Order: sequence, then C-alpha cells, then structure tokens
Amino acid sequence: MSNRTLSSLAELCGATLEGDGALLVRGPAALDEAQPDQISFLNDARHAAKLADTRAGAVIVPEGLDVERSDLALLRTAQPNAAFSAVVLAFAGEFEGPGPEPGVHPSAVVHRTAELAANASVGPFCVIGAEARIADGCVLHERVSVQARCTVGADSVLHAGVVLRPNTHLGARCVLHAGVVLGADGFGYDPVPPQGWQKVPQCGGVRVGDDVEIGANTCVDRGRFGDTRIGDGVKIDNQVQIGHNCDIGAHSLLCAQVGVSGSTTLEPWVVAGGKVSFAGHIRVGQGARLGGAAGAFHDLAGGQEYMGLPARPRGEYLRQVTLVGRLPELKRAVRALEQRIAALEGEDS
Amino acid sequence: MSNRTLSSLAELCGATLEGDGALLVRGPAALDEAQPDQISFLNDARHAAKLADTRAGAVIVPEGLDVERSDLALLRTAQPNAAFSAVVLAFAGEFEGPGPEPGVHPSAVVHRTAELAANASVGPFCVIGAEARIADGCVLHERVSVQARCTVGADSVLHAGVVLRPNTHLGARCVLHAGVVLGADGFGYDPVPPQGWQKVPQCGGVRVGDDVEIGANTCVDRGRFGDTRIGDGVKIDNQVQIGHNCDIGAHSLLCAQVGVSGSTTLEPWVVAGGKVSFAGHIRVGQGARLGGAAGAFHDLAGGQEYMGLPARPRGEYLRQVTLVGRLPELKRAVRALEQRIAALEGEDS
Amino acid sequence: MSNRTLSSLAELCGATLEGDGALLVRGPAALDEAQPDQISFLNDARHAAKLADTRAGAVIVPEGLDVERSDLALLRTAQPNAAFSAVVLAFAGEFEGPGPEPGVHPSAVVHRTAELAANASVGPFCVIGAEARIADGCVLHERVSVQARCTVGADSVLHAGVVLRPNTHLGARCVLHAGVVLGADGFGYDPVPPQGWQKVPQCGGVRVGDDVEIGANTCVDRGRFGDTRIGDGVKIDNQVQIGHNCDIGAHSLLCAQVGVSGSTTLEPWVVAGGKVSFAGHIRVGQGARLGGAAGAFHDLAGGQEYMGLPARPRGEYLRQVTLVGRLPELKRAVRALEQRIAALEGEDS
Repeated sequence: MSNRTLSSLAELCGATLEGDGALLVRGPAALDEAQPDQISFLNDARHAAKLADTRAGAVIVPEGLDVERSDLALLRTAQPNAAFSAVVLAFAGEFEGPGPEPGVHPSAVVHRTAELAANASVGPFCVIGAEARIADGCVLHERVSVQARCTVGADSVLHAGVVLRPNTHLGARCVLHAGVVLGADGFGYDPVPPQGWQKVPQCGGVRVGDDVEIGANTCVDRGRFGDTRIGDGVKIDNQVQIGHNCDIGAHSLLCAQVGVSGSTTLEPWVVAGGKVSFAGHIRVGQGARLGGAAGAFHDLAGGQEYMGLPARPRGEYLRQVTLVGRLPELKRAVRALEQRIAALEGEDS
Repeated sequence: MSNRTLSSLAELCGATLEGDGALLVRGPAALDEAQPDQISFLNDARHAAKLADTRAGAVIVPEGLDVERSDLALLRTAQPNAAFSAVVLAFAGEFEGPGPEPGVHPSAVVHRTAELAANASVGPFCVIGAEARIADGCVLHERVSVQARCTVGADSVLHAGVVLRPNTHLGARCVLHAGVVLGADGFGYDPVPPQGWQKVPQCGGVRVGDDVEIGANTCVDRGRFGDTRIGDGVKIDNQVQIGHNCDIGAHSLLCAQVGVSGSTTLEPWVVAGGKVSFAGHIRVGQGARLGGAAGAFHDLAGGQEYMGLPARPRGEYLRQVTLVGRLPELKRAVRALEQRIAALEGEDS
Repeated sequence: MSNRTLSSLAELCGATLEGDGALLVRGPAALDEAQPDQISFLNDARHAAKLADTRAGAVIVPEGLDVERSDLALLRTAQPNAAFSAVVLAFAGEFEGPGPEPGVHPSAVVHRTAELAANASVGPFCVIGAEARIADGCVLHERVSVQARCTVGADSVLHAGVVLRPNTHLGARCVLHAGVVLGADGFGYDPVPPQGWQKVPQCGGVRVGDDVEIGANTCVDRGRFGDTRIGDGVKIDNQVQIGHNCDIGAHSLLCAQVGVSGSTTLEPWVVAGGKVSFAGHIRVGQGARLGGAAGAFHDLAGGQEYMGLPARPRGEYLRQVTLVGRLPELKRAVRALEQRIAALEGEDS
C-alpha cells in the first residue's frame, strides 16, 4: 500500500490544511484506533472530546472547530464525512484485490447464442445462457450464472455466486453482491385438500433499473406473470427478500433482512430499517420511513415515520410503548380508586 | 415467443369464449399493464370496475359477470384464477430458458461410486459425492453439490448453487431453488466457561418427502442424530431457516424468512406467514395458521389462527392491539376518576 | 457403518455398564425412535417416564436413576448429554462423507502469488486470489472463493460455495458452512435528493478470531475502513447478518437470523436467540442474553436477560405481556368505577 502526503490528501478532498503537509499517511482509521501514520475524522463537533486521546497523525474536522491539541495536523472542511470518504476511496484501490481479467475465462460455459461485449469480464466457472446479453464494461466474478434471455446493463458488477434466472434484466451500473438470487419462482399455491397444494405457475421476470445495488444473499422473485420491478437507484442490503410482482419505487432503501411480500408497491424514496416486514398487496407512500423490525400490514401514507408491530406513526408508537411500560402503575391507580370508592360507599351506607 | 389464438386458449382452459377467436395473443399480463395482444384475468367480481380501463385484448372473467365493454373479448369460467394459470403455463415454455442438456456435463466432478440415472441431467461444475444416487429424470442445474450418500428422488430439480451435505435424502418431484443448503450442522454447543463453547456433534441427516418445494437460500440443518424431517408436499419459501431435528408435517407451508428452532414439530397443514418465529422443542397443532411476524414461543393448538409476538389467538391479539391503542384514553379516564373521587372526598370532609 | 459393542461404548464415554456388554450397537437414536440395536440417552431424571416405552437396546442415564425395566441395558454417568455426544461422535465418521482429497483439485484456479500450505485441501472449482494465504491443514470444499489478500488460519474448514472477499482474515480452526459470505460491502449511502443516494466507500476488511463457527448463508460485511471483528470462539448460526464495523466479543453466540446493524459492539459472552435485532452504534454488555425475536434499540447492560420489542429486562417484559393480556379486565374495572362514582355523585346532588 503506497503512502500519500497529507498535503495531497488535503487537496484531494478540498480541505484546508493546518500542520505538516509532508507527513506521510498510510491509510484511514477510526479515531480510537488510528496510529501516527494514519488519518481519521470527526464529523460532529459534539464529539470533539474524542480528539483528546487520539493517536492519529491527522484528523479531518468541521471548519470552525476549536481544537486544543497543537500536535495534531488538521484538515478543515464543511463536510468531514464526505471528505473522509474521498480519502478512504483514494486508498481503496489498495484494499480491493484485482477483479477477474478482461475477457472470458476459459472455464466459463457460454451459450453460442449469448452476446458478450468485447470488454466485459467473465470469471472462472460462470455460465451464460441462451440469448443472454452482457453489455460493455460488465464484470462477472467467478461462478456467476446469467441464464437464458437475461440482460445485464453496462458497467454492472456481479460478485461470486450470483444467479440470474431466465428473463432477469439489469440496468446500467448495478452491483450485485455475492450469493444474490434474482428470478427464483414466486411463492404461490392453491390449496387442494386433502391432496396438497397446487403450484400457481410463475412465469414472469425481474426488471431492475439503473444504479441499483443489491446485498449478499438477497433474493428477488420473478413475477407470476409480468415482472417484479426494482426502480432506478434502489439500494438493498443483505438477506432481503422481495416477493413476486412487487414494485420497489426509485431510490427506496431497504436495510438487511427486510421482507416484502408479493404484489406490494413501495413508492419512491421509501426507507425501511433492518428486519422490516411488508405484507402482500399493500402500497406504501412516497418517502415513508419504517424503523427497524416494524411491520406494515396495511397501506401506509407517505412522508411519515413509522415504528412497531403493527407499524404505527412514530409518535403514537412511542407513546404506547411508554404507556405499556406504565401499566403496573395504571393498575395500581385503579386499585387505589377502588378502595377510595369503597370507602366513600361505606360512609354513605 | 409464439402467438396463440384466443380460441385455442379458451379451449385450453375450458372457458366459454365471447369475441373473436382468431385474435392472436402473445402472452398474459396484469389488467393495468396488458396490451391489445395480451390476455388478462379478473378473479373477483368485486373488482369489476378495473375492466373499464384495461387495454387488454381479452380477459378471463367469472361466469355470470356483467361486462359493459363490447370491445373486450371474454373467456368466461367458474375459476378465472385457475384458468389464467393454465394460460400462463401454456406460454411458460417460452419464459423459461432451456435447462441443462440431458447427460453429465464434462466439467462435472462425479465420484466413481455415485449412481446416476441415465436420463438425469447434471450441469456444469456440479460435484457428486461418494455413493450418492440421482434418480430418473432429475435435473441438476450448474454448480450443484450432492455430497456423499445423498439420494435425490425421481424428477427432482435442483437449481444453481444448491448444496446437499452428506446424508440428505430427497423424495420425488422436489424443486430446490438456487442457493438452498440442506444438511449443514445444527447449532448446538455446551458452555464451558471461561474457555468457550464445546460443539455438540451434529451427525444426523435431512429427510425430505415427495413434492416438496424449497425457496432460494433456504437452509435446513441436519439432525444432531437421526434426521431433520420435511414431510410430503411441504412448501417452503426463500430464506427460511429450519433447525436440527425439526419435523415439518406434510403440506405445511412456510413463507419467506420463517425460522424454526431445533427439535420443533409442526403437525400437517400448518401455515406460517412471512418472518414467523418458532421457538425450539415446541409442537404446533395441525392446521394452525400464524400471521406474518408472529412468534410461537410455546405449544399451540391446531385449527386456529394466531398473531403477534408472543403469538395469541387472532381475536385476542386484535382486541389487545386496539386496547393498547386506546391506552391514552384509558389513562385520561383514570385521571378524571381521580379528580371526581377527590371532589367527593372533599365534600365528605 | 460398523457396529460397536456396548462395552466399548461404555468405555468410550466413561460410563458404568449395567447389562450385556457384548450387545452390538449400530448407532445412536432418540428414545422414541431407537431400535433394539441402537443406543439412546436420557439427560434429565424428570423425563424418566419416557424409558417405559423405548425400544432402544441401551440407554445412557443419570447415575442414581431408578429404572424399572430389567430388559434395558444402561450406561450410568454424571453427564448423560456429554456421554451421548461422545457416542454420536464415535459413529460420526460413518455419517460424514469423505471431504476433498488433500492437494489442489486440477479444476481450481489459484493465483500465482497465492500461498497454499502443502497439506491444505482445495476442492473442485475453488478460486484463490492474489496474495491469499491458506495455512496448514485447511480444507476448502468445492466452489470456495478466497479472494485477494485473504488469510485462512490453520485447520479451518470452508464448506461449498463460501466466499471470502478481499482482506478477510480467519483465525485457526474456523468452520464456515455453505454459502457464507464474508467481506461484502457495508450498507452506507448519503442521500443526495433528488438524484439519489451516493455510496459511502467501503474499504475495510473482516477479521475473524480462532475457533469461530459460522452458519450457512450468513453474511458479515467488511468495515467502511478498519475491520469488522468477530472475536475468538464466537458461534454464529445460519442466515445471520452482521453489518460493517461491528465488533462481536469473544464467545458470543448468535442464533439463526439474528441481525446486527453497523458499528455495534457486543461484549464477550453475549447470547442472542433467533431473529434478535440489534440497532446500529449501540453497545451490549458482557453476558447479556436476549430472547428470540427481541430487538435491542439502545445500549443494554450486561449480565441480564432481555425480551421483547423493544428489548426490556425479562421480568419487566413478562409483567407487561401479562398486563396487556388483562387490558380488557382493566378497562371493565374502570367502567365499573365510573358507574359507582356516578352513583355516588347522584346521591350527593
């Protein structure tokens, strides 16, 4: 990993340097772990006390912050978090290993009717199906399946073990992390007791927009007919499940282990915390935000924050949690009233 | 994709045709997305208003439904949903890409003691272990592992990346979607502080009945000893976890992200919604139904519906949710009583 | 599978034999499933009634237990559970199939700069990246990826389909079950409306201690910078998700489908039941225990047991659940009070 001078890092992230620009920095680190040859950051002036103990050689700080340590080199900027990301990224080439070589690895199995852009990379043990199309600049790491009639848009990256079942379509610049499965059958059966369940045929596809990122081991089922849709710019974390014929609006953001049952629509910019559940056949309005482990069982209006199981507006949820916590008190109050009334009734008789 | 005449589709699904039987249909679609060369369906007469705006060329509708649009070809039937499934399926060969060719792909690694039926398909990069047996008509897509001493029943389909650990046994006509792992070790440790946890050996297998379908990235652990059992006709969605030595009764249906802790028994025909939790070592009675995100922490009687965390009978749960929502009101009522009593007590003194 | 004499099994687990030591035993089984040539166990004297019906040929029982059946061979020991595990393990070589052969399978793709110990096993279709290091005695089953600059400690076992992204470091004697993904990008984006979300670069690694076991399809994300850490002796079940920059303390135990959001610290010996959620940026104290499906949204003190959503001390949670169940009763009590007060007020007027 090559070192960089502090002055080059200041320039890189547009920060004002206070200290020795010749200092050689070997990488980024958290304030409490950084060594004298590392750079760290403080995003929020309220945590300025953390600067007292850091061993970092340099710290990115908010512009007007009052810093007492004269031994600490500072990079001042209006946006320390973004500046630090720029620094992290500058070192990132060093963190990432090289991807697969351009071209098709000799072990890959590519159907004769598949169309691969000349500059796409197809790693070892990939399988590309009939009539699949892989666009310019795509990188398929090892053991990726792009099955029949799938299309992968330009500059998309598919990590190890990703499976695209037939008729899955990705836009440009998508990133699919290891173990993602798009296009498995939706979960639909009609009960035929006593014999069992009869499968409802699942024959649609999956259609993913541009700039979508999907986390490791996440699944998106194909539509029963027509497509399950993931809008432009949607970000999905690991181990999320999206059922058949859902429509996830542009720029929605789903944290890990979220589950969306079939035929549910999220309008754009919905944000769901970890483990949120969405029932099937519901609609959640634009910009709705759901706290971790909440469960949306009915339509929800947009532009609000929800919590709890079942999901309620945040204020209502917090009030209810408080009141449930005070139930012992309420019960005692009722008991006390009963005694006072009995006393009054006794006086009357 | 080849077109079909409307009259051939009417015949296929046993519906009565009203309209131009020569109309060429290119496929199925939802009412609000269908084009004039597509067919759609309306299952429930209560949603008949949706027919007003559809651009579909033909719609499958309930037998007696009053339809005002004379431009719309109709297929009348007692069961529009099933009829539409038949239509979808008729086009489905067109949706699915071709699977692996019959025979064993030259890249597959097959142990010399494994037994493969002559007409089984084994895709690229599969690994078949010692003494494994693959029956007639099975299809193993690419990168499937069938490890030592496993058996796969006739006409089963294993999608890309499925892993069967040793001593996993599948019945006939099973479908395992991409990324399924059967037979990983159960989760058992004895605490030996301060050194750590000592592993309880996990040496059993997994035994799956006939006609079982298991969703993408679902896991079923091997038994500690003896087998973890999945009964005939069980349907399991994506990302479900089933612990060691569970016994999932025939025709049970588990939606996505359900978790069943070890040694729990579900009797036949249990239905669990998405994200339902089952504690370990409990028994859930035949035909019990659990709503999404419910948690069964104790034995549950069969034949009823449960909701909530912890799971309660549905009516009880709904009453409690309502009452929790009215806690502010109840608290105000108690405060008002306190004031009225204080007033009465004041008069008395 | 070879049979063993009962006397050899008694010796193996240090138990006192009562009965025919020449009895040939073919394997272990549960009390209610065991056949006359199988051995079972009874761990808890309170369940002694189960001995009445067992068909087992021999049973491991607590030392002083009073057993009425003279036809049953007994192995008496202070720790029947541990003794039975020893017996199960003795037969286990027979349950497990053979792993990959020592050496590197000819189909594996190994970077010329990778360093593999001579006695490591690398199975079919594995991919080993640049500067990766695999230590003595490691076993990589088929289709494992160890990407650039990863290190795998001695005697670790990586099951089929495991993916280690660059800069993932495993200690000695780790076991990673099928489908595990370590080192995928953390989930971090800054909102830039209306255009979308800007990715926060994720450039750190994953550092796993010694003697860690990780269940099938579990994911641990790489740090944003610095490492996500899994301490020595940690045990993680299937389908668990651990976010970027978490620090999971030594000997913590996380059951299936647990989710830990980013930058959260679990101190040593934390135990979380199935589906527990941890919010991000919190700290959970040493030895805290969380019941199934609980949700920790704030820091929790160590040494206690918690339940519920949000997580509360166990006693408090149980009281609240009871009181919520009695809300109909409380409401009726308040109504009755209102009537009694109205009566008193009527008398007064």
